[in-house]
Amino acid sequence: MRYALYYWPQIQGRGEFVRLALEAAGAAYDDVARMQGRGRGVAAMLALMKAQGHAPFAPPFLRAGRVVIAQTANILLHLGPRLGLVPAGEAARAWAHQVQLTIADFVAEVHDTHHPIASSLYYEDQRAEALRRTRHFLAERVPNYLGWLERVSGGGRWALGARRSYVDLSLFQVVEGMRYAFPRSMRRAERRLPRLRAIRDRVADWPEVAAYLASPRRIAFNAMGIFRRYPELDP
Amino acid sequence: MRYALYYWPQIQGRGEFVRLALEAAGAAYDDVARMQGRGRGVAAMLALMKAQGHAPFAPPFLRAGRVVIAQTANILLHLGPRLGLVPAGEAARAWAHQVQLTIADFVAEVHDTHHPIASSLYYEDQRAEALRRTRHFLAERVPNYLGWLERVSGGGRWALGARRSYVDLSLFQVVEGMRYAFPRSMRRAERRLPRLRAIRDRVADWPEVAAYLASPRRIAFNAMGIFRRYPELDP
Repeated sequence: MRYALYYWPQIQGRGEFVRLALEAAGAAYDDVARMQGRGRGVAAMLALMKAQGHAPFAPPFLRAGRVVIAQTANILLHLGPRLGLVPAGEAARAWAHQVQLTIADFVAEVHDTHHPIASSLYYEDQRAEALRRTRHFLAERVPNYLGWLERVSGGGRWALGARRSYVDLSLFQVVEGMRYAFPRSMRRAERRLPRLRAIRDRVADWPEVAAYLASPRRIAFNAMGIFRRYPELDP
Repeated sequence: MRYALYYWPQIQGRGEFVRLALEAAGAAYDDVARMQGRGRGVAAMLALMKAQGHAPFAPPFLRAGRVVIAQTANILLHLGPRLGLVPAGEAARAWAHQVQLTIADFVAEVHDTHHPIASSLYYEDQRAEALRRTRHFLAERVPNYLGWLERVSGGGRWALGARRSYVDLSLFQVVEGMRYAFPRSMRRAERRLPRLRAIRDRVADWPEVAAYLASPRRIAFNAMGIFRRYPELDP
């Protein structure tokens, strides 16, 4: 099976959680919106979103044979068993999905730190509100979410136990993103997050992941993505 | 199987999407935090969230035998096949879940219209930001989300085709909630949403749902829930 991933070509964003899973498992895939030519590029992605029937609401989405699957956590729910990135058993998979959905909620809140009013406005046009929202985010939401992820990731070498999974890859991405966007706050927060730090380090040492991170396929964090560094938001 | 639902006792909130599924299917369940006595009430809910192991991050969560499942869409993913509220087949179920996750994203944005800065602050302490965020929400996000839900709900009597599902119940709740919170804006928006209106009406006529809505088990919309009516936000 060769997968086709559709996501904005210039950012990691939510697509990165899917890229990491595909890369870590050594799956064959095309990152379609980053390619040139017929049936490729952003135009091809937007065309699929305007199709009749089961068109996705937003990227990322994945074409796997004849099905198109959207919503990041739903894509990972589909890929997990096929890529060997989730334990067997319905209860274990429901738990993995639950953790992933909570990560998705956290990522949405990260986005809203710099866009608390509207995605359609520039950051500069909602900077005052961003400063206010981010203060609460760092003081209340980061300890809540990361503290919970730390707490439920105990008991094994990896987040779900003895075997690595897509949840570990997503935790890696969250830690990396937070370090990029809020380096000062995250340094303080990480003192209480030894398991997340250890999982982040183990993921970075996962050979397929290390190769991916060193490749041009890994887009750098930047000022257009979800995790953004605005020094005034990270005092 | 007798289910145990855990959710805040004074609001519909996210728990309502689960209540509607349990009620529509005639399932046996306890709404634990609304009950009195040992092992019941809000204290019992909070105790489960502090448990070791797979404790949920937030309500709602469902106890089904020995498993505890959190995240609204994940609960419905679990209940759908068991309550006869989703079509058979992996692709159909992944699509139902994708729509439900997009509804969840919309509901989170509804919440943030009145709480754009922090859930920990009163509405009155973020009213200026709420006014600004809601203007964009009504002009941009409502047409995007509800327009998409209208578009993908075509082709059959119900949102997923010929048979009713938990997605129809959630669409009912979204329409009801929007009518409560933004009556003026929703009246205008609904002109372009004939399918959602029709699905809403069919769900209201579903005998088990009608009986539930007329019962004291249905909490009224109020000023503490996700859908709130602040007239200044709905000019």
